[in-house]
Amino acid sequence: MYTRIPVKLPQDSYDIVICSAAPHARASLSQLADQISPLNLGKKVLLVSNPQIYEYYGESVVNCLMAAGFVVTTHLIPEGEIHKTLDSITQIYDAALENYLERSSTMIALGGGVIGDMTGFAAATWLRGIPFIQIPTSLLAMVDAAIGGKTGVNHPKGKNLIGAFHQPRLVLIDPTVLKTLPVREFRAGMAEVIKYGVIWDQALFNHLEAAERLDNFSEINQELLQTIVTRSCQAKADVVSKDEKESGLRAILNYGHTIGHAIESLTGYSQILHGEGVAMGMVAAGRIAVKLNMWSEQAALRQDALIKKAGLPTEIPAGVDAEAIIQTLQTDKKVKAGKVRFIFPQEIGTVTITDQVTSDLIREVLAEVTCQA
Amino acid sequence: MYTRIPVKLPQDSYDIVICSAAPHARASLSQLADQISPLNLGKKVLLVSNPQIYEYYGESVVNCLMAAGFVVTTHLIPEGEIHKTLDSITQIYDAALENYLERSSTMIALGGGVIGDMTGFAAATWLRGIPFIQIPTSLLAMVDAAIGGKTGVNHPKGKNLIGAFHQPRLVLIDPTVLKTLPVREFRAGMAEVIKYGVIWDQALFNHLEAAERLDNFSEINQELLQTIVTRSCQAKADVVSKDEKESGLRAILNYGHTIGHAIESLTGYSQILHGEGVAMGMVAAGRIAVKLNMWSEQAALRQDALIKKAGLPTEIPAGVDAEAIIQTLQTDKKVKAGKVRFIFPQEIGTVTITDQVTSDLIREVLAEVTCQA
Ligand SMILES: NC(=O)c1ccc[n+]([C@@H]2O[C@H](COP(=O)([O-])OP(=O)(O)OC[C@H]3O[C@@H](n4cnc5c(N)ncnc54)[C@H](O)[C@@H]3O)[C@@H](O)[C@H]2O)c1
Ligand SMILES: NC(=O)c1ccc[n+]([C@@H]2O[C@H](COP(=O)([O-])OP(=O)(O)OC[C@H]3O[C@@H](n4cnc5c(N)ncnc54)[C@H](O)[C@@H]3O)[C@@H](O)[C@H]2O)c1
Ligand SMILES: [Zn+2]
Ligand SMILES: [Zn+2]
Repeated sequence: MYTRIPVKLPQDSYDIVICSAAPHARASLSQLADQISPLNLGKKVLLVSNPQIYEYYGESVVNCLMAAGFVVTTHLIPEGEIHKTLDSITQIYDAALENYLERSSTMIALGGGVIGDMTGFAAATWLRGIPFIQIPTSLLAMVDAAIGGKTGVNHPKGKNLIGAFHQPRLVLIDPTVLKTLPVREFRAGMAEVIKYGVIWDQALFNHLEAAERLDNFSEINQELLQTIVTRSCQAKADVVSKDEKESGLRAILNYGHTIGHAIESLTGYSQILHGEGVAMGMVAAGRIAVKLNMWSEQAALRQDALIKKAGLPTEIPAGVDAEAIIQTLQTDKKVKAGKVRFIFPQEIGTVTITDQVTSDLIREVLAEVTCQA
Repeated sequence: MYTRIPVKLPQDSYDIVICSAAPHARASLSQLADQISPLNLGKKVLLVSNPQIYEYYGESVVNCLMAAGFVVTTHLIPEGEIHKTLDSITQIYDAALENYLERSSTMIALGGGVIGDMTGFAAATWLRGIPFIQIPTSLLAMVDAAIGGKTGVNHPKGKNLIGAFHQPRLVLIDPTVLKTLPVREFRAGMAEVIKYGVIWDQALFNHLEAAERLDNFSEINQELLQTIVTRSCQAKADVVSKDEKESGLRAILNYGHTIGHAIESLTGYSQILHGEGVAMGMVAAGRIAVKLNMWSEQAALRQDALIKKAGLPTEIPAGVDAEAIIQTLQTDKKVKAGKVRFIFPQEIGTVTITDQVTSDLIREVLAEVTCQA
């Protein structure tokens, strides 16, 4: 049993396949073979993962690919964002060369967004582009990173500066693998889920509100998790298929990210996970929207309650200086002509974009949402 | 005065602009400003070249860009194919970062195919793709490398293994810069011109036949050179716009390249220029086609005469072993299921593709076209 979400693009359309999370479903990653066969790919596969994730799920993926007649080699990259470098990419190239990967061969990413972004970029640039498949294993990768074709690595001086657009042939999601994801990572992924509820899908928001808990894989009803993942993937698929190369609509995915990125950057990308920054950013952006009379206070409070329920922070840590945040906003690469663009909810499920926010208003709200401890 | 050739693609269409080579035309690279303005690019430009070429033409390009209001930085890469590496690309990235290149900024390649392929790849992968412009300065780059969107670098173990498709926004050609191109490079480029005559454009072939000399820039009538470059660009544009991602028709551009590549590879890519290998390959392929009764002997002789007139070799050097060539053909990446695919002329201007060539026939022809000295 699975749900199929087609991602329609002018070229390179593909499907997201979400395996059923029902308790009695057969081990779902093994459905890979059924899903991959119709794609008519060559026989050679290079599977890219990290040691921890491979330890949990590698063997079952490899066995299933081999049973389906593929010749599989595995290349592991050490865990962590610090390995998301061009250097790791050259090592994937070397593995591709040693195993004689051809234009019809496939790279498969088994991991979180770090592994997915790197494998996608290697596939984008090996022999000027070979097929690749995403098997995201973190919640953030399932609902966000694996969908939309953005691939890349970090430059020593900036995140994701090097990259390419390259669409996967298939995104295969088995939500049950989230059982081994560290709880803090699970919550961080939930921030993006809440974001989709606010910017795009009111029904998703309502499902999240109806849930008893959202802060832990083992406490969430598995059917609800299935719904959450499916609706989130659908939201991302809707947006990216309307704006493949990020020329317009895709900007709404940055809701909560403007201030969130500034906080991540000011804390050196070490203390705060991306999703945690997004959570704080959504609280702040929501508050600004209320003060501008663009959003109702009641809706903002509902959003903040969801963030809390997901075990995510609703306050900016005391150590992060408001003036520094405002400064950082000005140098963000998305700034056009010195104006910071904000994405604001209008009602739950609908947003608008504006650059009409004064520094004074940002300052006022930051003071309110920064922890006073 | 200039000729404009539109390259029509499903997305990312662009123009090839060929400046008039007439003796009294104003210095043509300075037309860059007129051509670049309508593209609505950002103000920042990174010009990539090599020291020799920059010495000749860099200043006039930079001045003209600055006069048009662009902020220009220059990044030079040492001359030669050995520098066509990922390492050189990371140096372009560093220059892009230091100069705060944005999504709307432009990289401009001023040079032969080596500079063009690298600049294109850097532009393809910086910020997931920024605009780039080709100003090809070698004949081979003008009629071949700069057109079609193939970009990339070499892997230590193989040519052009790393790359991406990324279309330029503009290809600006000033044939008069060929005056400083070493004569052997000029002739090598002429091999691709002759190829277009044989596979695609009978009128081009006739122009080449009518020319008194083809072996030296200074001996060629400038109007003829203009015609040759224009028709060759048109041929490449026709083929690539019918097959952007190399799934079919584009294969015909490999006429003469099957055996040519084998010879280049066996001589370590040092003794023989690519165009020289292609010249030998066309002689051999033409001969095989004649023996298969696919092409008339008379047409093959006309082709060989053109190759000679361009100062290109019509014989394979004595040191290159026929058995080694046959062996190399088998391991070529374009081989499908062990069958070598050959492109053969049927008449001048028309080709066909076949994998029905026996090793014995190849052996027989190689014996005939290898220098007996
Ligand atoms: N391409 C895009 O559109 C896009 C969008 C958002 C984020 N990203 C990128 O994604 C990355 C963040 O992704 P992420 O949050 O998945 O980080 P990640 O890949 O580092 O994974 C987080 C941690 O969880 C571990 N992990 C993942 N799945 C697991 C599982 N099932 N069991 C046990 N451990 C598991 C990982 O080993 C890692 O330690 C960043 O590099 C970001 O730039 C890309
Ligand atoms: N992208 C494609 O579709 C494509 C097609 C064919 C070849 N290529 C690539 O192109 C490269 C070969 O191109 P190339 O033959 O231009 O080689 P090149 O770039 O090395 O140039 C040849 C030599 O001529 C010099 N030169 C170039 N223009 C000059 C000028 N006007 N005056 C003086 N010197 C000049 C260069 O410095 C170099 O020494 C190879 O790397 C090949 O893989 C790419
Ligand atoms: Zn995010
Ligand atoms: Zn060639």
